Amino acid sequence: MVSQPTILETNVDILIIGAGPAGLMAAASLAHLTPVPSASPLSVRIIDKRSTKIFSGQADGLQCRSLEIFDSLGFADRAWKEANHMIEICMWNPDDSGMIQRSDRIPDTIVGLSRFQQIVLHQGRIERFFLDNIQKYSGGAIEVERGIMPISLEIGEEYVKVKVRKLTEEEAAPPQVRTGSKSNVTDGIFRSNLVGDDYENKKITRERNGGVETINARFVIGCDGARSWTRRALGPEFELQGEATDFIWGVMDIIPITDFPDIRMRCAIHSANDGSLMVIPRENHMVRLYIQLKEVTPDASGRADRTKITPELIFGAAQKILKPYKIDYEYCDWWTAYQIGQRISPSFSHPSNKVFLAGDAVHTHSPKAGQGMNVSMQDSFNLAWKVGLVAKGVCHPRILDTYQSERRRVAQDLIEFDHKFSRLFSGRPAKDVMDAEGVSMAEFKDAFLKGNLFASGLSVDYGPSCLVVKNGDPGELGDRSNRSRELEGVHKITEEAFNAKQSLAKGLPVGMRVNSFKVLSQSCARPWHFQERLKADGRFRVVLFAGNILNRNQKLRVQAFCDRLSSPVGFLRRATPEGARIDSVIEVLTIHSAKRTETELLRDFSDILHPFDPRTGWDYNKVFVDDESYHEGFGDAYSNYGVDKERGCVVAVRPDQYVGWIGELEDFEQLQEYFEGILVW
Amino acid sequence: MVSQPTILETNVDILIIGAGPAGLMAAASLAHLTPVPSASPLSVRIIDKRSTKIFSGQADGLQCRSLEIFDSLGFADRAWKEANHMIEICMWNPDDSGMIQRSDRIPDTIVGLSRFQQIVLHQGRIERFFLDNIQKYSGGAIEVERGIMPISLEIGEEYVKVKVRKLTEEEAAPPQVRTGSKSNVTDGIFRSNLVGDDYENKKITRERNGGVETINARFVIGCDGARSWTRRALGPEFELQGEATDFIWGVMDIIPITDFPDIRMRCAIHSANDGSLMVIPRENHMVRLYIQLKEVTPDASGRADRTKITPELIFGAAQKILKPYKIDYEYCDWWTAYQIGQRISPSFSHPSNKVFLAGDAVHTHSPKAGQGMNVSMQDSFNLAWKVGLVAKGVCHPRILDTYQSERRRVAQDLIEFDHKFSRLFSGRPAKDVMDAEGVSMAEFKDAFLKGNLFASGLSVDYGPSCLVVKNGDPGELGDRSNRSRELEGVHKITEEAFNAKQSLAKGLPVGMRVNSFKVLSQSCARPWHFQERLKADGRFRVVLFAGNILNRNQKLRVQAFCDRLSSPVGFLRRATPEGARIDSVIEVLTIHSAKRTETELLRDFSDILHPFDPRTGWDYNKVFVDDESYHEGFGDAYSNYGVDKERGCVVAVRPDQYVGWIGELEDFEQLQEYFEGILVW
Repeated sequence: MVSQPTILETNVDILIIGAGPAGLMAAASLAHLTPVPSASPLSVRIIDKRSTKIFSGQADGLQCRSLEIFDSLGFADRAWKEANHMIEICMWNPDDSGMIQRSDRIPDTIVGLSRFQQIVLHQGRIERFFLDNIQKYSGGAIEVERGIMPISLEIGEEYVKVKVRKLTEEEAAPPQVRTGSKSNVTDGIFRSNLVGDDYENKKITRERNGGVETINARFVIGCDGARSWTRRALGPEFELQGEATDFIWGVMDIIPITDFPDIRMRCAIHSANDGSLMVIPRENHMVRLYIQLKEVTPDASGRADRTKITPELIFGAAQKILKPYKIDYEYCDWWTAYQIGQRISPSFSHPSNKVFLAGDAVHTHSPKAGQGMNVSMQDSFNLAWKVGLVAKGVCHPRILDTYQSERRRVAQDLIEFDHKFSRLFSGRPAKDVMDAEGVSMAEFKDAFLKGNLFASGLSVDYGPSCLVVKNGDPGELGDRSNRSRELEGVHKITEEAFNAKQSLAKGLPVGMRVNSFKVLSQSCARPWHFQERLKADGRFRVVLFAGNILNRNQKLRVQAFCDRLSSPVGFLRRATPEGARIDSVIEVLTIHSAKRTETELLRDFSDILHPFDPRTGWDYNKVFVDDESYHEGFGDAYSNYGVDKERGCVVAVRPDQYVGWIGELEDFEQLQEYFEGILVW
Repeated sequence: MVSQPTILETNVDILIIGAGPAGLMAAASLAHLTPVPSASPLSVRIIDKRSTKIFSGQADGLQCRSLEIFDSLGFADRAWKEANHMIEICMWNPDDSGMIQRSDRIPDTIVGLSRFQQIVLHQGRIERFFLDNIQKYSGGAIEVERGIMPISLEIGEEYVKVKVRKLTEEEAAPPQVRTGSKSNVTDGIFRSNLVGDDYENKKITRERNGGVETINARFVIGCDGARSWTRRALGPEFELQGEATDFIWGVMDIIPITDFPDIRMRCAIHSANDGSLMVIPRENHMVRLYIQLKEVTPDASGRADRTKITPELIFGAAQKILKPYKIDYEYCDWWTAYQIGQRISPSFSHPSNKVFLAGDAVHTHSPKAGQGMNVSMQDSFNLAWKVGLVAKGVCHPRILDTYQSERRRVAQDLIEFDHKFSRLFSGRPAKDVMDAEGVSMAEFKDAFLKGNLFASGLSVDYGPSCLVVKNGDPGELGDRSNRSRELEGVHKITEEAFNAKQSLAKGLPVGMRVNSFKVLSQSCARPWHFQERLKADGRFRVVLFAGNILNRNQKLRVQAFCDRLSSPVGFLRRATPEGARIDSVIEVLTIHSAKRTETELLRDFSDILHPFDPRTGWDYNKVFVDDESYHEGFGDAYSNYGVDKERGCVVAVRPDQYVGWIGELEDFEQLQEYFEGILVW
């Protein structure tokens, strides 16, 4: 007698749907939260309907901010080592005779912006780094469950009920087939926006015993791409809104054989009449070409005929654009095509703050600016610690509102940038100033230069909220989606008062990420990029710029700050659960500006700045000095952060490295309020 | 009916005995030789009688040159990331009242010496990096075979016949036991020179069927430590010679709990009367203490009573030396003790040039200078490519003579350095200038400073041979062992002629390793440390300093050089086997000094400098320019290498990054002779 199988029902704190870069970033960030104590360990699951990770094609640009984030998770070095480094952009425009010629060279990354520069690496490798990192930091507890497809979602009081089904191998295999001409080439056209939703909607024919599970999740993060199942499950009010253009572009990853001189540079090429081309040099001799397909146009329905698009057609267009230079290839790794358009969801989170959407699920645009994967990963990097710390009971749930207010604005900026940039790049170059229909190459270069800052990911500036103490209207400065709900717990501060605070550390704009300069460990003289000490482990940080600690008055000021810091009613001890390490929720880091060799850790700094542990002794890793190193120069951190070398200041840094608060050493009460608005104690 | 098992007999090109750092370096280096073609793939085996790799204790300092070598194999970044970085040395001496006080601070690594600085990392991690690297580069073909013990060795005409036996698990387990007091601590005393050879000589009682194998090896490399079985198998004429001292030192790896202010610095501490101590800060909060044991002295036999030596005794001595500072610990990871002495083998290789010894097998000394593991790895790094290329039929067997001539001298220098340094460090500090029995602290500091250069591994300067074209007596400049056999193929060059050549590139001394400065890729503007382009893949390199390629005369000179290089009778084509890539035995790299943006790879440089491949197109990775980078400054390579920016020069670099030859662009014939003396074609 065979009994009817009961449907498996399980509970989890956080369920991530989709294991592309955004989903993996969420999982990795959550795996790193271990230093922060909680009543029970955080349980996290990540599912994906595909049976394997990506192996070729797809996004590949990594901007500075993504690398800084990778570094805070511990694997920027792997990307840096394997990637192709893009150093220079060469612009090619038609000359008077209509021949393309190099008109400009600019650095690909603005000089001095970050300790990293933009690089290019295949998405499959990035997913590999994430998978290894998740394995290492979760100790195997978080593992991507592949071939699992969500089939229903229901938001309840306590849990989001997500029913999922295990796919058969055949169902889970992506229909990415080898169809190329010269060799069997991986074709990405099935995922392109030129085709319908046939893959995503393919009919599930076989139900199997034991194949269905109900997951009761406290929080759900949907990172399931442009055709997000999670988004559709949330209802039509989450659908992407925006427009498509008539511009169709092809993409090819090839090993080029060419006499074009700048094939290893990033190039933006406008031909006189044959369309535009972007060259992105990659690893393993490969080059990605983004190629405008002027011969392919959308039909009355607004969609191009995908059957017309072949590698031969795409490459033929590239050969025309590049004339008189010759280009050919023996090896093509991948190709696809897309229609330029920009779409965004009105909302990134369900009003319950139990279901969130990130990445392509809420914003799509053209891939040429190399932004998609980066902004998507930064979405879930912004979200994961918030959800994780709320799930752990460490943070107040109100911080979850800031996900939408912070990230939807960035997405909005992105699609506006892409909208403008795509039109300038897809337009025919103006023949002269009288050619009003043509695109001015000077304007294009200008947009490119401005876009470079945006494209670094470092211009992101979060508006006022409970997490960011600055003046202004949170609706205007933050979220521009006209969401009805007011942000809770926004700090009130006048423009004048804020300017006074900001002037204490002009190089650390409140709402922006902490830039990095080198400081030395007081106890061992080792130089560290300060950002290296701001790991993404879910801890808030208070950075005490202690100033000239050898000055008697300043020493008294620092002492007074430390006394309040050590007090049982101060935020530090109140935030720390009974029995936990004093640095487990908020870590205090000190940078002073006296000479290293004239100061001593144990003699000149309060115990609270280098806490004692009965097993490991004093903590030698929390006090730094702004002084010259033997081998790596002088970081000049005080000057670069714009902090007074005598008086210093205090800065609160969020777990994602963004500046949340700045004040004087005497502004302890305000700092206490800042943490009171965020933490549960 | 059970038949008598026949003994398994196998052939191998190279057998490495011992899988410590020296043996693993040999295996890794051989795994990297794949770009160099050979009739059949090189077969390599590495055996070790221990059943596991090292997990704690043992050597841990990594000097600059070792890191450069790791980088040439591809894993310096892993060591750099995990290690503790030692930045400063603090010297502590008794003041007038006999209390210890800090008397000096000096940088631990001489500033500007290398792109790396000395770091400290547990030997077990280093072995892990080697194992991963060997796996990756050999594709799994080379794997350490553990629990295998050699039992006989016989040198024949064609092969060295090595009989080995598979040990039982019990036999193979090292007798490293947990004997500490406060916790169960790993004790390294069994490997210390204070005990006899009981472990190494333990009686093999069980012979098992199938447990014995005869390996016919073309070459054998013995890296089996201070009590090397291989050395003893070669006969008494290889026995270590040297002397022991009365100085006994203890070693402890602890997490210290202390008020001593410099516990995270490298410290050399001379107490007034209680002996000396060295502090080596390590990873994971740990510190290694080298502690002089004044209370333990050798008996009449010259050997100390090991039973007296306990962690309590060692730590008690440390506490006395450090007074008035307090030190204690809760956690001890490992401890041992040793008697200072220096011994060296008269010969590093069997006259047949079929069996070689490397590392501790041929030189032993005290561990404090952090030299042992480094010099040992550098021995086998020097040897492996020579044996590998001879085995592949690429190099003439005469190059094998240079192993002894080059490395025995380094070992001799090392034990002289250690002899002097140990005595200065173990001596009682002089009370004043009249205290003739005491050690002058000024003299100690001076020795330390001089020792620092030696200790970096960068002062190694190989004498004249078939591989190094310089003047001088090879016997004097190279091997000082008074070996009877003459070095074969030594190039004759007068002092005057040599000085003229050397003056073409004063920053590239012939016989020393190529220092590293940043240059840019001509085709993509990416900055590279030039050493990064000198991978340890068994290839010789010709570095063409092309000078100012935009100058008409200079361009003609470069063209003339390239024409001869491209000729079928030139060394490049003669060295390259039929059907192999043109860069498979000798790679030509170019550094020019014109402006990057005024030059173009395909237009301004001969095809031979960026060879064409029908599948991958032009080679964009061989031409570099000495120009300013956007993000990483200006390497100023021509000035730093001392090369004329207009005229340039040509430099031949060995596979191990040592300069072998320097000449003018017109000295093609001499360069041809250089390679004729080395390569078989």
